[in-house]
Amino acid sequence: MWCMENKEEKIGLIPCAEGGSTIDDWAADNTLFRHAVCQAKFAMQDTELIGILWHQGESDSCDGKYQTYYEKLQTMTAELRQELNAPEIPFILGGLGGFLGKSGLGANCTEYELINRELLRFAQEQKNSYFVTAEGLTPNPDGIHMDAASQRRWGVRYYEAFSKRKNVLSPLENEMELLDRCINVPYTKGEKMHLTMMDFISGRMTYEELCRKFENI
Amino acid sequence: MWCMENKEEKIGLIPCAEGGSTIDDWAADNTLFRHAVCQAKFAMQDTELIGILWHQGESDSCDGKYQTYYEKLQTMTAELRQELNAPEIPFILGGLGGFLGKSGLGANCTEYELINRELLRFAQEQKNSYFVTAEGLTPNPDGIHMDAASQRRWGVRYYEAFSKRKNVLSPLENEMELLDRCINVPYTKGEKMHLTMMDFISGRMTYEELCRKFENI
Repeated sequence: MWCMENKEEKIGLIPCAEGGSTIDDWAADNTLFRHAVCQAKFAMQDTELIGILWHQGESDSCDGKYQTYYEKLQTMTAELRQELNAPEIPFILGGLGGFLGKSGLGANCTEYELINRELLRFAQEQKNSYFVTAEGLTPNPDGIHMDAASQRRWGVRYYEAFSKRKNVLSPLENEMELLDRCINVPYTKGEKMHLTMMDFISGRMTYEELCRKFENI
Repeated sequence: MWCMENKEEKIGLIPCAEGGSTIDDWAADNTLFRHAVCQAKFAMQDTELIGILWHQGESDSCDGKYQTYYEKLQTMTAELRQELNAPEIPFILGGLGGFLGKSGLGANCTEYELINRELLRFAQEQKNSYFVTAEGLTPNPDGIHMDAASQRRWGVRYYEAFSKRKNVLSPLENEMELLDRCINVPYTKGEKMHLTMMDFISGRMTYEELCRKFENI
């Protein structure tokens, strides 16, 4: 979505997530926070940081943890913005999926709606913070992680919140159309070369076939 | 190999490699070097750096690049040791495979023996530096990357060089036996849980089966 509107520029993601982590795990002195700061600062040596994406809370959706969630998130984000000297870039908070609290690994997340309430309140009260609903999205068979198609739809919503700097409280009317425009495009030269190379290194293509293919890309 | 001799400790790797990179790409002001330093320094916040593993040179095995390879490697490693305050930890250099210069992506690496000569000379002349031969190891169908079985054998040789602080100039007599002792061990509890979880999230096991399996691990 970002690339479609910024054709002359490149974008990179700085992956810092850790599966199953709680808000306490993200406290500013802990490894996850320090790692995120370290990775971001390295990227900022020659690029511009333009946003922070947050999706977390499943591990805090039980045992009344929602009661202290807001305060912990507020402390952490304040320290993060200070460390990165980024007081104004958008901080986008993804809501938790309505499929939680029911089955598989998600069965224990019975208080996800209370966490969602805190995430939304955070976006409403804190500057440069925006909430993105997970309404209508569906999980993998594990009952906790969003399936790939839902992740893509959610990305469209995240971009809406990021680019328009507003909360996205319900699915976008045209999100499937936007998604379609975003993913149904011809492969770039680089993508074609990568796919061809994958065929070759997996043994599905000889070196001679690889050379011929590359000549025609 | 390290874990077998250090049962009470944990080890981590700090991956910094970049496929297809040249020795020039690794010059101290460039991204790859700065990234390696950044990642190592982060790890060193609460762990001890005990060695540096180097396997590179295919991209310099042509066009007479071997003539300046030693000097560039020497400059880079000196700066790396200084940045990391690590003047004495072993620097282990893997030689290039005898399968190079023949086919596929490795066809262009016609001067790999000249690079190997420089790598060995480096280990002989520079302090705390040790060479590991790739003799007898075999490539994937791409003609350039070592196959998985060879990577494991090579790991045994790397550990020999690391732990005995000596050059490994020919395959170890007992390397297959050492390898066997290293990899043919029962899964740990953590490994069993991981494998079971993979079955579950891939849809090959129900949540009820997962719970039963977990109880018996």
